Amino acid sequence: MTVTGGALPQLQLRRHEERRIRSGHAWVFSNEIDTQATPLTGLEPGAAARIVDARGAFVGHALVNPHALICARIVSRVEAEPVGPALIRRRLEQALALRGRYVGGEHYRLVYGESDGLPGLVVDRFGDVLVAQSATWGMERLKGAIDAALTALLAPRLIVWKNDGNARELESLPREVTVTGGAAPEHLQVREGALRFEVPLADGQKTGWFYDQTANRARLAAFMSPGARVLDVCSYAGGWAVTALAGGAAEALCLDSSQRALDAAAHNAALNGHALQCRRGDAFEELEALAAEGRRFDVVIVDPPAFIKRRKDQARGEAAYRRLNTLAMRVLADEALLVSCSCSFHLAADTLPVLLQSAAQHAGSRLRILAAGGQSPDHPVHPAMPETRYLKALYCHVSR
Amino acid sequence: MTVTGGALPQLQLRRHEERRIRSGHAWVFSNEIDTQATPLTGLEPGAAARIVDARGAFVGHALVNPHALICARIVSRVEAEPVGPALIRRRLEQALALRGRYVGGEHYRLVYGESDGLPGLVVDRFGDVLVAQSATWGMERLKGAIDAALTALLAPRLIVWKNDGNARELESLPREVTVTGGAAPEHLQVREGALRFEVPLADGQKTGWFYDQTANRARLAAFMSPGARVLDVCSYAGGWAVTALAGGAAEALCLDSSQRALDAAAHNAALNGHALQCRRGDAFEELEALAAEGRRFDVVIVDPPAFIKRRKDQARGEAAYRRLNTLAMRVLADEALLVSCSCSFHLAADTLPVLLQSAAQHAGSRLRILAAGGQSPDHPVHPAMPETRYLKALYCHVSR
Repeated sequence: MTVTGGALPQLQLRRHEERRIRSGHAWVFSNEIDTQATPLTGLEPGAAARIVDARGAFVGHALVNPHALICARIVSRVEAEPVGPALIRRRLEQALALRGRYVGGEHYRLVYGESDGLPGLVVDRFGDVLVAQSATWGMERLKGAIDAALTALLAPRLIVWKNDGNARELESLPREVTVTGGAAPEHLQVREGALRFEVPLADGQKTGWFYDQTANRARLAAFMSPGARVLDVCSYAGGWAVTALAGGAAEALCLDSSQRALDAAAHNAALNGHALQCRRGDAFEELEALAAEGRRFDVVIVDPPAFIKRRKDQARGEAAYRRLNTLAMRVLADEALLVSCSCSFHLAADTLPVLLQSAAQHAGSRLRILAAGGQSPDHPVHPAMPETRYLKALYCHVSR
Repeated sequence: MTVTGGALPQLQLRRHEERRIRSGHAWVFSNEIDTQATPLTGLEPGAAARIVDARGAFVGHALVNPHALICARIVSRVEAEPVGPALIRRRLEQALALRGRYVGGEHYRLVYGESDGLPGLVVDRFGDVLVAQSATWGMERLKGAIDAALTALLAPRLIVWKNDGNARELESLPREVTVTGGAAPEHLQVREGALRFEVPLADGQKTGWFYDQTANRARLAAFMSPGARVLDVCSYAGGWAVTALAGGAAEALCLDSSQRALDAAAHNAALNGHALQCRRGDAFEELEALAAEGRRFDVVIVDPPAFIKRRKDQARGEAAYRRLNTLAMRVLADEALLVSCSCSFHLAADTLPVLLQSAAQHAGSRLRILAAGGQSPDHPVHPAMPETRYLKALYCHVSR
């Protein structure tokens, strides 16, 4: 798709609605558009449009979807820089430079949507394989330009468009996996520091790996006592457990509901010269069972899937975090480390300590927070968009 | 002072006021006491007392000051464990064990008040010299027991009671510096990782060193490009600047209003085989001057004193943070790193990104947050006491 400046449709904001957007936020909600002046109905999903304020002054170039709640996402705030292959290329170059400077290597999130000025797009780099996800019609229609720019910049062996996530439904996008450059690989290769991992692509979570936790995992060793017994709750492919083993843990037990995730975890331990135990089942039930069996651990990592996906899940989700952490504390030895994570954007950073304190009281424990981590630097936070910050990881000392 | 359980005075909370305290908070405010039932007037500042709820049930053992807004601070929640030398000794042992486990070495904050179950007490360890501060009459009266326990545990050469801070005024405590074990040393020796520092005791800020930033400084190297030109705004004794030089910076400029701080910074650079430049003056004015001179830096660290000491300073303080960071952005090169800190408890963690975004817009820059740090693990956060979490350090990539 090539977009030329002249023929662009225009969307006019209602009075004062430009403020949040001028402050740097990239999203325009449909009720912020003056639909009398500029009806949304004529626009094609994924089209580029000029956003103007109530006086007609330029605000930004956006990609639109008239049927979505977020009806437009700003891609450029420079009038002479409309959405198109040249801008896509420039944004990808900037994203790559940022990772080159602050992350290094060839394994990281290369594009983190809004924070990289490419709303709706995620690209993870696994060496010479890129795994991309588009969550908007706008990015969907730019797939060709994105493929071309990524190929020019990185010459990847494959670009996998793993467009099978739930987010696609919000924009009525089809769920599908397509591959540019060949057939889909069975596995993805990951490097994290000195460690190697392998994850199955087909049923891997998200793009296949949680690069957002890389920095937090790297920090684990600093808080671990040698010879620790480690429990990795909701382990997926064993990222935390293998990091703990490499950091001097005596043993590690992975707990997950997916046998394929546990198989990958065991394989990943072996890849790095270690071995781990696996236990399949529901995290809540298995933690209760472990407590009943009298099992105790020196380090427990609780890194569950998002319990609060939408605001209406708030109360139930918070209760789930509280309960899961209470159960985790029951299997903690005295004077032990709890790493408690939440990837729910809707769980405020200030709320997780409150839930942990409540869990500690339930368990009759005393808890202190040693450090708090967020997303790795390859998931930079856009300061005008709180939505780009979602990950919390608290390192806590728990004693009687 | 020895306190025996039997003769303890009692303070009764008004109905429902026990909730926050039962949830783990250590402070009792004077308006939460049922002064009809248990008048505050008869109590001696610094005395131990039993806190009970409206039904007379035990809540905790506390140290009281009838004249202070926070009229009691809970030290123990176990009825059989009243405040006294044995409890002080146990708390100090626990504090030492925590640092041994998570920090190591002999240079750290050994006691961080409420988070270590010793409200009102701070002890920093500088090898064989301990620098203590008490902020309440309760701790003041326990000085002897604290000295004895610290001596038994660590056999320090000296214990300096550096009780010359503003916090003492809230409890009408005299400002004074006393030394247990000999004469006050002129300098304190600090080790941070592989680095050595020396700070003058007499007019040093706080206890002499900001151990709370140790973990954040350690992280700086990961974000620095080799050969960087570094500016350390409000440098004090050069902790950040020397860390940057050791991490590969080509040059570092310290900016501070105190000549003695700058002298210490230059000395500390030399101690570690480096050299740095100094510039004395008001941070705001000097940043304007540097911008006017066309000076540009690849890394700027902004680590000012607390601009919001009390809630009434909120608006003015936030404006000061915004303005200082705007000025800092004016001396940043394109594609540079800004490390922006705030040690104001009253500045919410979510607010600093908003101020930085506003500053970036003023400066015509684009800012992304790579990582967010808090206090070092030797300043653990008590999850029931938000007051124990105050430090924010944001690592930001700033570009045009």
